[in-house]
Amino acid sequence: MSFNTFGKIFRFTSWGESHGPAIGCVVDGCPPNISLSEKDIMKDMNRRRPGKSKFTSQRKESDKVNILSGVFRGKTTGTPISMIIYNEDAKSRDYETIKNKFRPGHADYTYFLKYGIRDYRGGGRQSARETAARVAAGAIARVALEKLIGKKFKVIGAVTQLGLLSCDKNNWNEKEIRKNPFFCPDLKSTKLWEKYLQAIRKSGSSCGAIIELRASGVPAGLGAPIYSKLDSDLANALMSINAVKGVNIGAGMNSAFLTGEENSDEIKNISGKTKFRSNNAGGILGGISSGQEIIVSFAVKPTSSILNSRKTINIKGKNTKISVKGRHDPCVGIRAVPIGEAMMSCVILDHYLLNRAQCG
Amino acid sequence: MSFNTFGKIFRFTSWGESHGPAIGCVVDGCPPNISLSEKDIMKDMNRRRPGKSKFTSQRKESDKVNILSGVFRGKTTGTPISMIIYNEDAKSRDYETIKNKFRPGHADYTYFLKYGIRDYRGGGRQSARETAARVAAGAIARVALEKLIGKKFKVIGAVTQLGLLSCDKNNWNEKEIRKNPFFCPDLKSTKLWEKYLQAIRKSGSSCGAIIELRASGVPAGLGAPIYSKLDSDLANALMSINAVKGVNIGAGMNSAFLTGEENSDEIKNISGKTKFRSNNAGGILGGISSGQEIIVSFAVKPTSSILNSRKTINIKGKNTKISVKGRHDPCVGIRAVPIGEAMMSCVILDHYLLNRAQCG
Amino acid sequence: MSFNTFGKIFRFTSWGESHGPAIGCVVDGCPPNISLSEKDIMKDMNRRRPGKSKFTSQRKESDKVNILSGVFRGKTTGTPISMIIYNEDAKSRDYETIKNKFRPGHADYTYFLKYGIRDYRGGGRQSARETAARVAAGAIARVALEKLIGKKFKVIGAVTQLGLLSCDKNNWNEKEIRKNPFFCPDLKSTKLWEKYLQAIRKSGSSCGAIIELRASGVPAGLGAPIYSKLDSDLANALMSINAVKGVNIGAGMNSAFLTGEENSDEIKNISGKTKFRSNNAGGILGGISSGQEIIVSFAVKPTSSILNSRKTINIKGKNTKISVKGRHDPCVGIRAVPIGEAMMSCVILDHYLLNRAQCG
Amino acid sequence: MSFNTFGKIFRFTSWGESHGPAIGCVVDGCPPNISLSEKDIMKDMNRRRPGKSKFTSQRKESDKVNILSGVFRGKTTGTPISMIIYNEDAKSRDYETIKNKFRPGHADYTYFLKYGIRDYRGGGRQSARETAARVAAGAIARVALEKLIGKKFKVIGAVTQLGLLSCDKNNWNEKEIRKNPFFCPDLKSTKLWEKYLQAIRKSGSSCGAIIELRASGVPAGLGAPIYSKLDSDLANALMSINAVKGVNIGAGMNSAFLTGEENSDEIKNISGKTKFRSNNAGGILGGISSGQEIIVSFAVKPTSSILNSRKTINIKGKNTKISVKGRHDPCVGIRAVPIGEAMMSCVILDHYLLNRAQCG
Repeated sequence: MSFNTFGKIFRFTSWGESHGPAIGCVVDGCPPNISLSEKDIMKDMNRRRPGKSKFTSQRKESDKVNILSGVFRGKTTGTPISMIIYNEDAKSRDYETIKNKFRPGHADYTYFLKYGIRDYRGGGRQSARETAARVAAGAIARVALEKLIGKKFKVIGAVTQLGLLSCDKNNWNEKEIRKNPFFCPDLKSTKLWEKYLQAIRKSGSSCGAIIELRASGVPAGLGAPIYSKLDSDLANALMSINAVKGVNIGAGMNSAFLTGEENSDEIKNISGKTKFRSNNAGGILGGISSGQEIIVSFAVKPTSSILNSRKTINIKGKNTKISVKGRHDPCVGIRAVPIGEAMMSCVILDHYLLNRAQCG
Repeated sequence: MSFNTFGKIFRFTSWGESHGPAIGCVVDGCPPNISLSEKDIMKDMNRRRPGKSKFTSQRKESDKVNILSGVFRGKTTGTPISMIIYNEDAKSRDYETIKNKFRPGHADYTYFLKYGIRDYRGGGRQSARETAARVAAGAIARVALEKLIGKKFKVIGAVTQLGLLSCDKNNWNEKEIRKNPFFCPDLKSTKLWEKYLQAIRKSGSSCGAIIELRASGVPAGLGAPIYSKLDSDLANALMSINAVKGVNIGAGMNSAFLTGEENSDEIKNISGKTKFRSNNAGGILGGISSGQEIIVSFAVKPTSSILNSRKTINIKGKNTKISVKGRHDPCVGIRAVPIGEAMMSCVILDHYLLNRAQCG
Repeated sequence: MSFNTFGKIFRFTSWGESHGPAIGCVVDGCPPNISLSEKDIMKDMNRRRPGKSKFTSQRKESDKVNILSGVFRGKTTGTPISMIIYNEDAKSRDYETIKNKFRPGHADYTYFLKYGIRDYRGGGRQSARETAARVAAGAIARVALEKLIGKKFKVIGAVTQLGLLSCDKNNWNEKEIRKNPFFCPDLKSTKLWEKYLQAIRKSGSSCGAIIELRASGVPAGLGAPIYSKLDSDLANALMSINAVKGVNIGAGMNSAFLTGEENSDEIKNISGKTKFRSNNAGGILGGISSGQEIIVSFAVKPTSSILNSRKTINIKGKNTKISVKGRHDPCVGIRAVPIGEAMMSCVILDHYLLNRAQCG
Repeated sequence: MSFNTFGKIFRFTSWGESHGPAIGCVVDGCPPNISLSEKDIMKDMNRRRPGKSKFTSQRKESDKVNILSGVFRGKTTGTPISMIIYNEDAKSRDYETIKNKFRPGHADYTYFLKYGIRDYRGGGRQSARETAARVAAGAIARVALEKLIGKKFKVIGAVTQLGLLSCDKNNWNEKEIRKNPFFCPDLKSTKLWEKYLQAIRKSGSSCGAIIELRASGVPAGLGAPIYSKLDSDLANALMSINAVKGVNIGAGMNSAFLTGEENSDEIKNISGKTKFRSNNAGGILGGISSGQEIIVSFAVKPTSSILNSRKTINIKGKNTKISVKGRHDPCVGIRAVPIGEAMMSCVILDHYLLNRAQCG
């Protein structure tokens, strides 16, 4: 039960609107005595930050995170960690022309219907700016997991599909992901992707994307059947990200097309270690981690705020047209990579603690 | 925080193992003064029940639901509704030969690793038998929603993909769904499906499926951003069903391939009513229902318990082979239809009540 | 958020009405691999059971607990433990004469106002019969704590005030508590108590009581500030018991009358062990257990269902009188002892697991 | 499940340490479209604020609340309301002399044992400074309830016992409460109280207090049996306040001494309205509000930080003495009045929304 809180034991509560004075979150349930600094958090923040390339929003935000509580002399104390990020480059005037219209595909319409009031400036609470809070919380989860599990723990995401263009996952190169502005794991695809996205942007349109997340070093046994399964919690976490419309665990939707033999991952003992011959399960069986790499992917729909004119109605119900001139990402899916990693880290840490509670 | 409880205000707690004396659930938070009988519940139970055709498990269960509390003289009292379903046809001997082996693709291995103990008979708690409890709870949600919203409320599901075979959704016929043993909405596809599934079954294999759920009559405004979104809660609900590996809201994974223009559903006022020109959003924007039909689909992987031999290890870690002879569905996806409907009904009722709490 | 569920990680959901077919509860989050039998549970059930002496209700209930799930070959499996207790001696006819009247001091009136419907037979859901479910859950918590902490862990309760009569707590004798029908810790007081309660009963009246609970062997560090404090959770747990109107931690209400010097428990190192010179804190500081004995007390109001005539209204709002002839305890406080112990055990186990989650 | 979050639907998450840069809270689940300004909140903040008389801590804090989100053009939007209060007068040097010693009666010892680390400056997280966040949240609850229920709704608290001195509750005068520095409802008692407290303060000691809270205008039907009762949630709320050791509902602990006739409040229909002839129940029956005034009281132990020397140990376990020279309230119970009101308001609003959810 939690409108703006995510998690069970390791939980964060996010707050703030796109054009308010600040956004932030309160992280609760973090284990004590973990070394943590604002610098640790900025590493992940910088990966999500807008304004870094021409392929993301031109809004300039330093996204500087201030820790206000819960850390004493560089270590977590077990009390809530409050973080604040000031909004620096909010241009509310951009929104004056559309404040009385509903952007198709956007939550303008449903927020208005639900609450009878909405902060239309920059999308208010519905803005993807909220995801900065997630990344801050996720950075803490990552640091905590590295302490608890060790450095073998790692979560990494990449864009594996950009609109109509896929990439070759056989060329998955972690270092490459960190170098190109698309979080693309396959160097060979980046050139084409660049041209494609420029064309999309120039045409006043936008495109969708698929992001794949991989977590390695996750111990077996995480996930609590039946209604706190690791996979259902991951699905919940990822589907809660703005613009996400689909989530796959391992083979995902594709598993419908497989036979029992093709799908089930055979098990083998190799020199005393359990090995699986494939990973259609995405590392999760019965809602519990198996010790294999956890693989999840999700689809982000194309940005709804586009320059091209669209039919809609205004708040009085009159038919009209809309063209959105703000500083929007041509593909919001790109910046979803660090957000997905953050949510995945939070879910894994939460289940690590939950499992420790019940199973010692 | 709830290992075996689902929901926020309307919540159910399920319990029971496949081969224990009974399974059941406790439904809490149901509004009072709603007419409810065991008959109302049996309608849905009968749709999920095994042993009805050669395409589902041959286990014979009447799945008779007994209401033990919470209903007084045919009406709900607002107190918890406890329901019990006795297990009648558990054949534990079937499992003796495989009790020390892990079925690939099954949760045998992970339950054992997590808890250090497991009831191997019929899969114990990990068995899909647990879903009977979900259907019972979902039936109550459905009855409550019909009272609160009116008869215009309807949730209906269908199998739209059976292994490699799709169907023509343009032929979607609700009555047809209730007639054929596949919950297929397209009469023309059923003959081919029948032959296909018989072949799968005879070959000792199994296949996956995709199920589509449609909820109509759902009022706008349901869903509580940011972390109790209607879509993220649906994703959580559906991914928690045994063998589900992927969830789509509206266009789902497919939205990655669309442009902003193709994807965003234009809005129009037609004679004073808001209409959308398409429904890629699946009726949900920003995590809130828009008043459109809510459309969700999910993939069920092929049954992991198959006759064909598979490589695996035993509980001592030795390499071995396994062939499962129990009474298993050749496609567990088929019986997932009423389960999906049940989970969707529970989520919608929960959000109806949640919205009433905050927004009146 | 949980109408009929208690706890955070170790949680139980209770269900059932006084005169329905059965009552029961589902215990979730119990650690796996703990030896547990119905016999373990009956030990505590028998202490709460009615019909054992003339000082408690004459309703005859064996209160036999059936475990329906979650235990495999004598050990908990980590999955939900469902327990059912059949109602054997419900005499609903007793209630026909008062079904349209509200008993003063009883929840008849408020249930009716809240839900617009109520099962009046034996008080329905509001009956203290529900507490049998708590005792069953508490017995499991006790067994789990004895496994996790060791046999040094112990929770014991006693009636220290019966109506106007106190007892001498300096004579606190654990064995004595288990011998007399009042759970009185002071042998010398029991004779007078017996006469007093007989007089109360014969006069058609009832009396209140104070129960003191002591938990020893509880490790330091349990309790999660600020809003899951050990003491606030205990207060919540005990105040949720039928007829309880006050809860004290350590010196409790009395601490208002003390000075800082009198109240604060000085600390001393004696041979390498931390000792406190007094225990006004009741073993809890800042919401966290200190390692001292945890001491809590609570007041139970006199039974509201009495023979003596009382003014009230009926469900049509007309003034009338009521005299309750059912089989009621002259002092419900007596049977509250095992219930209080059960709730305390549940809270301590829950915090043991919670602390293990966050602090390892 | 919430270490630093209070509430179910209307919930707040508090954060911050006594000597950190700021404290604050995030209020979630507030109904939309309620007029709210920082001024509304300051009214309650000013009543709790330290430094206003010689009878409270001399720490000077303006306790200015800044609303950072959730309010748009003077109205709540239904999204989280984040509030921050900067710490202005933290004198951490005061604590250097005692940083390695445990104050008896304080949470120094248990925080250290639990987390293995603690911010000792001003008590860190365990400081009563946290209660400022509660008052801010409670002010919002109060404003929301006045909108939802109307101006007839009112929560008012008073100190009815100051150490050994009681007051005459027959002289209960609401206006008087707001005038004297003790929140004493009885003008005649204030002179003696003043002398008494001055003597306590000068002697380097401290005293306890009892606070009584009265809520009028609360509709019948609030409170959700069995484990979200209005009274058990109030007990939880009040016991979570620093230094509270006892909670009474209505007659409270005293009800142990009453007979059934004395205790149960007879009901009468007077001119079509239900009236009770007494209020031992404190307005709550079976955990549900009856429509009567809700009356709750709680005891606050004497301040543990006193000038007079006390025996204790240091963090190395050595025996030592401690004398606390900081700026402490001689009676922390006094400032507990607005805190108690705040918690009571939060609980009532929460149950108002919960009841609306289930019962419409």
